[in-house]
Amino acid sequence: MAMTKRATSPALEALLGTALPVLDHGFVRVVDYMGDDEAIEQAARVSYGAATRAVRERRGLLRYLMRHWHTSPFEMCEIKLHVKLPIFVARQWIRHRTANVNEYSARYSVLANEFYIPNPGDLAPQSTDNKQGRAGELSHRDAMEVTNAMWEHHNNSYALYRQLLNEDKLRWSSEEFPGIARESARSVLPTSTYTEWFWKVDAKNLLDFLRLRADSHAQLEIRRYAEVISEIVETWLPLTFEAFQDYRMNAVTLSAQQLDLLQTALREGLPIAGYDFEEFNLTKRERDDLLAAVIR
Amino acid sequence: MAMTKRATSPALEALLGTALPVLDHGFVRVVDYMGDDEAIEQAARVSYGAATRAVRERRGLLRYLMRHWHTSPFEMCEIKLHVKLPIFVARQWIRHRTANVNEYSARYSVLANEFYIPNPGDLAPQSTDNKQGRAGELSHRDAMEVTNAMWEHHNNSYALYRQLLNEDKLRWSSEEFPGIARESARSVLPTSTYTEWFWKVDAKNLLDFLRLRADSHAQLEIRRYAEVISEIVETWLPLTFEAFQDYRMNAVTLSAQQLDLLQTALREGLPIAGYDFEEFNLTKRERDDLLAAVIR
Amino acid sequence: MAMTKRATSPALEALLGTALPVLDHGFVRVVDYMGDDEAIEQAARVSYGAATRAVRERRGLLRYLMRHWHTSPFEMCEIKLHVKLPIFVARQWIRHRTANVNEYSARYSVLANEFYIPNPGDLAPQSTDNKQGRAGELSHRDAMEVTNAMWEHHNNSYALYRQLLNEDKLRWSSEEFPGIARESARSVLPTSTYTEWFWKVDAKNLLDFLRLRADSHAQLEIRRYAEVISEIVETWLPLTFEAFQDYRMNAVTLSAQQLDLLQTALREGLPIAGYDFEEFNLTKRERDDLLAAVIR
Amino acid sequence: MAMTKRATSPALEALLGTALPVLDHGFVRVVDYMGDDEAIEQAARVSYGAATRAVRERRGLLRYLMRHWHTSPFEMCEIKLHVKLPIFVARQWIRHRTANVNEYSARYSVLANEFYIPNPGDLAPQSTDNKQGRAGELSHRDAMEVTNAMWEHHNNSYALYRQLLNEDKLRWSSEEFPGIARESARSVLPTSTYTEWFWKVDAKNLLDFLRLRADSHAQLEIRRYAEVISEIVETWLPLTFEAFQDYRMNAVTLSAQQLDLLQTALREGLPIAGYDFEEFNLTKRERDDLLAAVIR
Repeated sequence: MAMTKRATSPALEALLGTALPVLDHGFVRVVDYMGDDEAIEQAARVSYGAATRAVRERRGLLRYLMRHWHTSPFEMCEIKLHVKLPIFVARQWIRHRTANVNEYSARYSVLANEFYIPNPGDLAPQSTDNKQGRAGELSHRDAMEVTNAMWEHHNNSYALYRQLLNEDKLRWSSEEFPGIARESARSVLPTSTYTEWFWKVDAKNLLDFLRLRADSHAQLEIRRYAEVISEIVETWLPLTFEAFQDYRMNAVTLSAQQLDLLQTALREGLPIAGYDFEEFNLTKRERDDLLAAVIR
Repeated sequence: MAMTKRATSPALEALLGTALPVLDHGFVRVVDYMGDDEAIEQAARVSYGAATRAVRERRGLLRYLMRHWHTSPFEMCEIKLHVKLPIFVARQWIRHRTANVNEYSARYSVLANEFYIPNPGDLAPQSTDNKQGRAGELSHRDAMEVTNAMWEHHNNSYALYRQLLNEDKLRWSSEEFPGIARESARSVLPTSTYTEWFWKVDAKNLLDFLRLRADSHAQLEIRRYAEVISEIVETWLPLTFEAFQDYRMNAVTLSAQQLDLLQTALREGLPIAGYDFEEFNLTKRERDDLLAAVIR
Repeated sequence: MAMTKRATSPALEALLGTALPVLDHGFVRVVDYMGDDEAIEQAARVSYGAATRAVRERRGLLRYLMRHWHTSPFEMCEIKLHVKLPIFVARQWIRHRTANVNEYSARYSVLANEFYIPNPGDLAPQSTDNKQGRAGELSHRDAMEVTNAMWEHHNNSYALYRQLLNEDKLRWSSEEFPGIARESARSVLPTSTYTEWFWKVDAKNLLDFLRLRADSHAQLEIRRYAEVISEIVETWLPLTFEAFQDYRMNAVTLSAQQLDLLQTALREGLPIAGYDFEEFNLTKRERDDLLAAVIR
Repeated sequence: MAMTKRATSPALEALLGTALPVLDHGFVRVVDYMGDDEAIEQAARVSYGAATRAVRERRGLLRYLMRHWHTSPFEMCEIKLHVKLPIFVARQWIRHRTANVNEYSARYSVLANEFYIPNPGDLAPQSTDNKQGRAGELSHRDAMEVTNAMWEHHNNSYALYRQLLNEDKLRWSSEEFPGIARESARSVLPTSTYTEWFWKVDAKNLLDFLRLRADSHAQLEIRRYAEVISEIVETWLPLTFEAFQDYRMNAVTLSAQQLDLLQTALREGLPIAGYDFEEFNLTKRERDDLLAAVIR
């Protein structure tokens, strides 16, 4: 513990250094952070000066910024996470380019014997509806057979990796086999293998990450990370997170055509479902999306 | 003219090299481009493979990408513009960081005697409603006095600039006055001075630029550039631009609270305006925005 | 073929669309490009105006830009490559963030049965000197055993992948086993599995990529890609590439301490190796690097 | 003051919140920071694992990273500065794109009557040698006349700005003149006008900024800011800054051709100046640069 004049979030301090578990062997651990809700307000007041005097309190100002896509003040907060995650998750994650990364290098070091095996309840058949996802259920017996097969495969993979490295000096290949370089041996390991990294990102880009990765279309595994990080953000920046929920996660965007149908229905006092969606240049899917959004 | 195997947009070729005028002395000139609507489709089909087979034709696929924020295929097109613009517009423009820029340097070269003077009809008093904009009208006499005063000020500024450079070897200061360096002399020129740059950007980031800068909240002067660039994009990527209009420019995002009120009104068959917006945790402004969006 | 007014590189046109083989199943294919050496010169002349008049011809100007780290004009050229590469190479490659990527998605589509197996001659033991690399040799017998073991492992991995997908409707697990989603099944595939992407990057960032990845410290596999891309750049931007070779790839940077020793040796007319490097605050490695650089 | 578990730099804490003066009205003020030298080491040890065990102490490891362009660990530190600076300096500064910015908006607020007037001793004629810089001296009388003329010009500019805003309700133009919008009025202000911003950047990109802007080719005014920021970095990250000085600021890069000449001279034991530089494909300037670098 040290004294600091910096903006400090007591709630996040309590989490600092604690590994929050995700999946079977993964975690998210907050290593460091910069700023808080007030720091976002402070930056906005520098930018928008007079205009912000009208919005006197912080919550209203942060909601105003979020609503009007004034995103730069949210870049004034930064967080550094230590994450342990399967390689296939890391490959989705890294697509978010505006962030800083230091990943464990399997050229320099030997990887541990840790693989992601889905919880049997998380396995499901390919969705026929959603080309990128899973849907429906597996029988318990099928799920167990799948996870057992994965388990065995991962063990075999890791055994081969060790043999190729020849770190155990077991006899394999010729007696004088010196092993092959780590950078070559690792190529036999599956993408379920766990890796680790430090990931540092500003709050604006972190929210963009959550918008895509906490979404129901994201793969379940990265979603689990996004859910844990959502809780971290809620602890760290409670007012920002509330505004993010209201104006992004739980908001709905209606296209020009969907709006046209909605406006017509409201004007004529008739139910949306009664209109011929093709007359409004909508696909059936878009019409259904509109209904799902506004009819509760 | 040369032969090429590259994706080519005949419509944009016709514009290539032509300076499209903006404001009093500015222009936008297309210098080069890469890709077309088909190139976006092609990249998407590499990514989403099987999933895209269902959406057989290009227009539907591009609309699907836009609707679901699958933005990376739009990065596969690139355009390079030569733009002449006032410095105060350049300062707003440069905030879009994901782009390549080569600006005319007033350290290396002398700036020309060209300043932006607003069209008298484009002058207006400060808006009391919108802290960042203008609203209302000036009398013709006031507008003329303002532009005359600007005109005189710019001439005086440029005269001082030339004196400081001493490029005309007029007698000023001592007889042996050698002038001061260009990098120092330029500091007396107003931000209405025209500068030039090459600006290269991918279509995804260009659309993000247009979303902010073709918006009614953008300053009128940068909006004029955005409007000309919108026409360029429509010429170059007609299907992409159509989808952008429908799912971004003319779309509306409703917050969780706005949706709640809309859903309630639709369920109960009562007019939105009849509800107490505060019960839905809406500000008056947000309620009015909702009404403006859905009531036509 | 089409007619275009755009900058065109006839030499690169000849390569366009041709898959240049890399490793056992990989390739690099130029899909599109923007600009040429002249386009870089053109952007520089906009920026540096008067200053560039002194450097009359293109080659001299491009060398001047490279030497003085005036890198922005090199961003005015862009290239789009279609690349097929092992996942472990893709993971190194993607660390270059300033680029656009559309990767084949194994959530949407089934991966092909293609894996990278090193050429036996490319296998080597872990270097004891260079923690991240390989060095020395394997016996032919060891190398064959290693590649055979990899071959078998990859086949087993792919067989499991197909079983998990149950695309062949073979009986496995229960009779009604519907398979699991593609996004889950792929996690058993090793990082030697080939993937594909479209990668679009400007010339400045491409040269930064080559500086790191064509370097002898880069992993051999990504270096093979960098070598092929180097040839592409030489074809496309011959003057830029020559300057890049002279001022980056084949240049040497001497630290303040190395310079101090070199200056002293030159002043005193004595051999560098005769000095006590510790007096110059050099490590032995840095002294050796200096000797290797300047003594031929 | 608050308690924190975060990495803390006591030396930088002492500076936090203090406006360090630059130029006549400018300043740099550290608002917040994340990390310290140890945080860079920590990230590097995650990445390079086993390889870093050999380099036991921090200083050696940081120097190793700097020397070998392993730059990503330096991205793990972040600093947030509040800067007041003339617009023409801001325009150079903003070209460093990998940073977060919130600038005072003259659309929302009225600018203060503060302009940069160079110290008479900082004025100089255009360099004939260096197209982008100044060189030589002005007579005291000339310098005083120049600064007086600037002073008067800035006062006139600001007076016009106020008149256009009509904030003082002085009679100008017609009696009912309502003033024009802030966003329009500001265009008459010169680029010497002071603006303010919050600028947040990671240590890697901050060092890149210093490398260009603390260099003797940078304009004197931005160099003054770079010098103050250099002192801040030295206070904050002393080991990193030392390595940066030795391997970047005070290092020298020799081109392939310069190396060839140096190697030849060392091999033959003859003075560099005695060789015909054109035989080594060097320009006279490059030969002179080589001599300046290695002959002391």
